[in-house]
Parts: sequence; structure tokens; C-alpha cells
Amino acid sequence: MTLDIQFLSDYVEIRQLNALYNRLADSGDGDAYAQLYTDGAEFHIVGNQTYCGRKEIASAANATKVTVHVTTEPEIEIDGDSASQRLRMLTVYRAEDLSKNDFVASGWYLDELKRTPDGWRYYRRRVELDLDINAVFEKMAVTDSFAALVKK
Amino acid sequence: MTLDIQFLSDYVEIRQLNALYNRLADSGDGDAYAQLYTDGAEFHIVGNQTYCGRKEIASAANATKVTVHVTTEPEIEIDGDSASQRLRMLTVYRAEDLSKNDFVASGWYLDELKRTPDGWRYYRRRVELDLDINAVFEKMAVTDSFAALVKK
Amino acid sequence: MTLDIQFLSDYVEIRQLNALYNRLADSGDGDAYAQLYTDGAEFHIVGNQTYCGRKEIASAANATKVTVHVTTEPEIEIDGDSASQRLRMLTVYRAEDLSKNDFVASGWYLDELKRTPDGWRYYRRRVELDLDINAVFEKMAVTDSFAALVKK
Repeated sequence: MTLDIQFLSDYVEIRQLNALYNRLADSGDGDAYAQLYTDGAEFHIVGNQTYCGRKEIASAANATKVTVHVTTEPEIEIDGDSASQRLRMLTVYRAEDLSKNDFVASGWYLDELKRTPDGWRYYRRRVELDLDINAVFEKMAVTDSFAALVKK
Repeated sequence: MTLDIQFLSDYVEIRQLNALYNRLADSGDGDAYAQLYTDGAEFHIVGNQTYCGRKEIASAANATKVTVHVTTEPEIEIDGDSASQRLRMLTVYRAEDLSKNDFVASGWYLDELKRTPDGWRYYRRRVELDLDINAVFEKMAVTDSFAALVKK
Repeated sequence: MTLDIQFLSDYVEIRQLNALYNRLADSGDGDAYAQLYTDGAEFHIVGNQTYCGRKEIASAANATKVTVHVTTEPEIEIDGDSASQRLRMLTVYRAEDLSKNDFVASGWYLDELKRTPDGWRYYRRRVELDLDINAVFEKMAVTDSFAALVKK
């Protein structure tokens, strides 16, 4: 079996998207970050809640400026203009004054993506952590920031 | 120099195999995991022992349900239907109840692979850890599980 | 958009270079490591200093035999025979007797590369750590080794 150039191109584009996502998620620039999702996308953090649409998704990114988002190997499947991905992630804590920098948790991103005129974009992203999410929020001192986001 | 499409295809297929390997190794589904090796493959864990053939390899996978297998950048060489790989790995501990999730050790996978009708498969995999392996087993509380596997 | 084979080839070659770099940086073989830079390259460690040319760059590599260099997803841009890369890195400590093996810090490599007859090479590499660099040097017990390198 030889993968064709379209698959190889899609594979590399999605990996570049994952890298860009991590950088924008780290930066706390929620608006730029939310552009990596399709309009109407859903971002579900298991144990927390589902953020629907770019505005809510941007607010979740803004709540976590002390997170370093690291991803490694994806399993990627492409079906025309749709793709799915299971992606290993590592969460690292970084104090803004660089006084602390610790491994926090491993987890998965389970993604569905769409090909758009701007390139591949996430339209369903699900995060599953390998540590109780309340322990993760505590380690990163973001419990209050995320509590403020909970839908009434 | 420009890499040809066959090399690029093999490179991506082997990276996808590494991702699938990590997922199946995490899951504790030893039988599915062992299918990623050729029949008659050898899996050598330095400081522990060599597991020969899919049945023994499956038993090693079943002993480590609390391990998160993470791999990052490989150096891959292809020679026709054979390939070799040096792959950086990180071992993370994850309690089944999600109460603990810690970095345990870094290490290497040193692999030889064969192209088969089902895709690339490992036929020699060697794990070298950067921490004494008994300390690794203790951190993950799997000392007894692995002791039970030792060949008489 | 479909990436062309030249881009895909360059992308894979740069990832292979990153993997080779990490291995040679770990090994403490400064001379082999320095060959991955162009002649006249600059390696800037933020908070430490800039190493200019292969001889100084080799000396920096020789100071850190207890470091495991891990990199994950790059964002790569190619412009003819030049490339730039933002690359997530993780620094892990490994005692030479394998008695300790700990996560130390995350950070970035910010790179500029040139296409050469030997393949892609770094000519500007900048390291930014997410932990105060003196804390990193202390955790790895390399404060004295790096102090000895400081230009008078």
C-alpha cells in the first residue's frame, strides 16, 4: 500500500494545525484560537462542560493562560472533506513568572475535522484527561476561572 | 534531495503504527496489541526479559494497564520492505481511577520493522529506559505483575 | 489546498533532523552535534548566552550530558532554500547511573534553517524555557558546567 499525495498532504496539514492550536491555546488569545474551529463547533471537556460556537470556545481558552498544550502522535483517518483524529496530549503547568513548570496530566483529544477554504478546522473536539479534572484544575490554580464559565 | 512518495508514505504509515501501538498498549488488550508485531517477533525490555512471539508479547501488554505510552519523534530508515526506527518514548503512570497521573521515565524504542500485506509491523522491538527498570516497576506498582511473567 | 511533494519532503526531512538533533544532543558528542548547524550558526539560550559557530555550539552540547531532549509538534514554513520552525520541546533529566529521571521544563525552539548539500541545517536556533533557566540548571546540576562556558 502506498498512501497518495492527497492523504500525505492532509496528514501534514492536520499536524501543522495541531501545532498551531497548541501555540494559540497557550497564548490565551481566545479569538485567534477559536478561528481554528468551524463556526458552530463544539468543544467538550469531559468532567467540565461543552463549549458551543467560537465565542464560548474562546472563553475556555482565555481561562487557561498557565497551560502548556503538548501533543504527540495522532492517529488520523481521512474521508474526503472529513477527518477524524485520536491525539495523545500532555498538559504542563507554567506559572506566568516562570517560577514553576510541572507535568500535570496526560490525556486524549478525540477530534472530528472538516476541510474548509481556510484549511482543516475542528468541528468536534473532546478532551479526556487521565487525571480527575478537579485535581487538574487545582494543580493549575484555575478552578475559579473555569467555575466562572459554567453555564447557568 | 527530495524524498520520493514511497518514502513519505512509509514514514507516515510507521508514525500511524506507532500511534496505534501506544493506544493498544495502553488499553491492555494484549491480543489486538500483539497483532502489530509479525508472527515470531521479539520484544526485548532491557533489564526485564525478551518476549518471543505474539502470545508472550500479549502477556507483557496485559501486565501494564496503568501505563500511558507516549512517543514523539522517530528517526526512520527504509530499505525496501525493511525499516528501522529509533523512537523517543515517555512513560506516564495513570491510576485506573484517575486519582494519580505522573511522569515516570523517558526511554527509547529501537525497532526493526517489516512491510507485510497488513502494513508495517514490528519484528524486533527493544525498550531502553532512562531510569532503573525496577524503579519504574515500583512507581507503577507493577513489580508483581511482571515478576509473574518471568520465564522459569 | 494540496501541499506539493517538495513541501512534504522538506517537512519530513526537518522532522528527521529534529530527531537526530535530540539524539546527538543527549549523547554529549558535541562535534557530531555541531555538524547539524551551518558553519557560522548561532545558538541562543535565553537567559544564558549566544554560542557562535560550531566550536562554541559543541561546547554547549558537551555541558549537558544529563539532559534528555524531547521535541514534539513543529510549525514549519518553507521558503525556497530557507525554512523557519517553532518547535515545542520538553527537557527531561536523566542521571548517568539511571537512578533519577524527571521532567524538568517545557520550552520552545525558534529556528531558522538553510537547505545545504548535506540536507537541512540550523543556522539560528533560539531556546526559550518555561522555567527560570537558573532553576533548570540547578535541577540538572549543570550550573557549574554552564558557568564555565560564559564568555569573559
